[in-house]
Amino acid sequence: MSVTTKASIASFGGKLLKLSHNAKTTNCEMNFNLYLPPQAIVERKKVPLLIYLSGLTCTAENCSEKGFFQHGASKKGIAVLYPDTSPRGLNIEGENDAYDFGSGAGFYVDATKAPYDKGYNMYSYITVELPQTVFEAFGEIDSARVSITGHSMGGHGALTLFLRNPGKYKSVSAFAPITNPINCPWGQKAFKGYFGEDNQEKWKEHDATELVKKWTGPLNVLIDVGTGDNFYKQGQLLPENFEKAAKEAGVTGVNIRYQPDYDHSYYTMATFSDDHVEHAAKYLFE
Amino acid sequence: MSVTTKASIASFGGKLLKLSHNAKTTNCEMNFNLYLPPQAIVERKKVPLLIYLSGLTCTAENCSEKGFFQHGASKKGIAVLYPDTSPRGLNIEGENDAYDFGSGAGFYVDATKAPYDKGYNMYSYITVELPQTVFEAFGEIDSARVSITGHSMGGHGALTLFLRNPGKYKSVSAFAPITNPINCPWGQKAFKGYFGEDNQEKWKEHDATELVKKWTGPLNVLIDVGTGDNFYKQGQLLPENFEKAAKEAGVTGVNIRYQPDYDHSYYTMATFSDDHVEHAAKYLFE
Repeated sequence: MSVTTKASIASFGGKLLKLSHNAKTTNCEMNFNLYLPPQAIVERKKVPLLIYLSGLTCTAENCSEKGFFQHGASKKGIAVLYPDTSPRGLNIEGENDAYDFGSGAGFYVDATKAPYDKGYNMYSYITVELPQTVFEAFGEIDSARVSITGHSMGGHGALTLFLRNPGKYKSVSAFAPITNPINCPWGQKAFKGYFGEDNQEKWKEHDATELVKKWTGPLNVLIDVGTGDNFYKQGQLLPENFEKAAKEAGVTGVNIRYQPDYDHSYYTMATFSDDHVEHAAKYLFE
Repeated sequence: MSVTTKASIASFGGKLLKLSHNAKTTNCEMNFNLYLPPQAIVERKKVPLLIYLSGLTCTAENCSEKGFFQHGASKKGIAVLYPDTSPRGLNIEGENDAYDFGSGAGFYVDATKAPYDKGYNMYSYITVELPQTVFEAFGEIDSARVSITGHSMGGHGALTLFLRNPGKYKSVSAFAPITNPINCPWGQKAFKGYFGEDNQEKWKEHDATELVKKWTGPLNVLIDVGTGDNFYKQGQLLPENFEKAAKEAGVTGVNIRYQPDYDHSYYTMATFSDDHVEHAAKYLFE
């Protein structure tokens, strides 16, 4: 469970740490970044954690550099964890052939189909192994106060991990999430590859629109979707399906903001990350 | 003087425009980015301009994505211009051989030595052609209110362009600037290549530490230098020389902040860009 520090970078009064560890669930060395806000470093306070799950093709670096989460997190006193998006270097045939499957596209599930069942276990990695590793190595982080957010495939990850684990996370939010993967090309390709075509019940277990039907009580989720987002226009995100399912199930607290003209890029995250940190802070400090 | 719009991206309530034009001074097509804040787009107000000059190897993209000037500029109502760092594609022999000379390393001078005198005229490009092009194409920008800032080689550019043109810019600031190029390896290599080894008077005309000796009145410059910056430690930046020269010349208003642990990266700009926008706003709106 030991963590290797590859770099420590001053950022907004705190430190962005570039880290790695040998992960059992994914069967390889995994890189991740962790932002410790000034409240943890200077004031030596115990701080809560916001997990940010990245989208297709990304690593921990993209959002650390371009998402602007450190800005809000440094003001509120929240640590931010940026995991990678898949195992790396498992040498599974074909894992590097497409941008939307395999490397960089773990979809936050535990694969059940060979050969991906040998390490593509991002669900267990993100919900269990990585946080345990982080809590063990960084005593300044309060393991009882964790929220989750993410972008695109990572928005799917944030929603499904939250919905499958009531009480585990204090809050959830998402940017341009894939909310109904069983009904969009990205999700269908991934679930076919990780679960097999016939395993439809398994598919539903990782579909936010299916999961929200079983949720009880308010969800208190903040979702931003840009109306200029090509993947939204192409029907990869389907936030309307999620909204409709939540409404029909009587689930309240679903705040989907359609942001005029905003696209699928990190420029959108940078613009609204303060709002998402604020959203998380409301539940992390209540 | 016509401008081609390659992309328009929603950012912090305004628009980041990716633009290009055929530039006469540099003898090639030049890309640049322009951020129009919401005050110009939504409120249709005339807004002032902050020019951000990038460092070695960078294009207009790096700071647009990672510097977060849009955050502060959107609040204050300031347009931000991100030029490129050199001509591109002139096919001068050797121009792509080094990261610190030629392509991506124009050093904001007009070269006098062949073959670089055929287009490496970033001084004229930034002080005359580009702003004229921008003011002509974007009537919402107030040509009478322009400030300048920059990073590393671009910090050198900001300081020297300001010091050589009293009254042209309302204010100046810089991140990790090369302040005494005639006495550091980066500057010596560049000036040797662009001006020739024997042209020492020309070298001094583009050296901030030499130029500040002739300045009269307060300079009101804000400079941030990270103490964890390897290029600072290696003597490429030499802010102490600039500070000493200013002091000896009786120039006041030199605020150099040595930021503990901060490095030479965009993480530093992201952290302090709000301060530099605030500094510019003080003079742009006075």
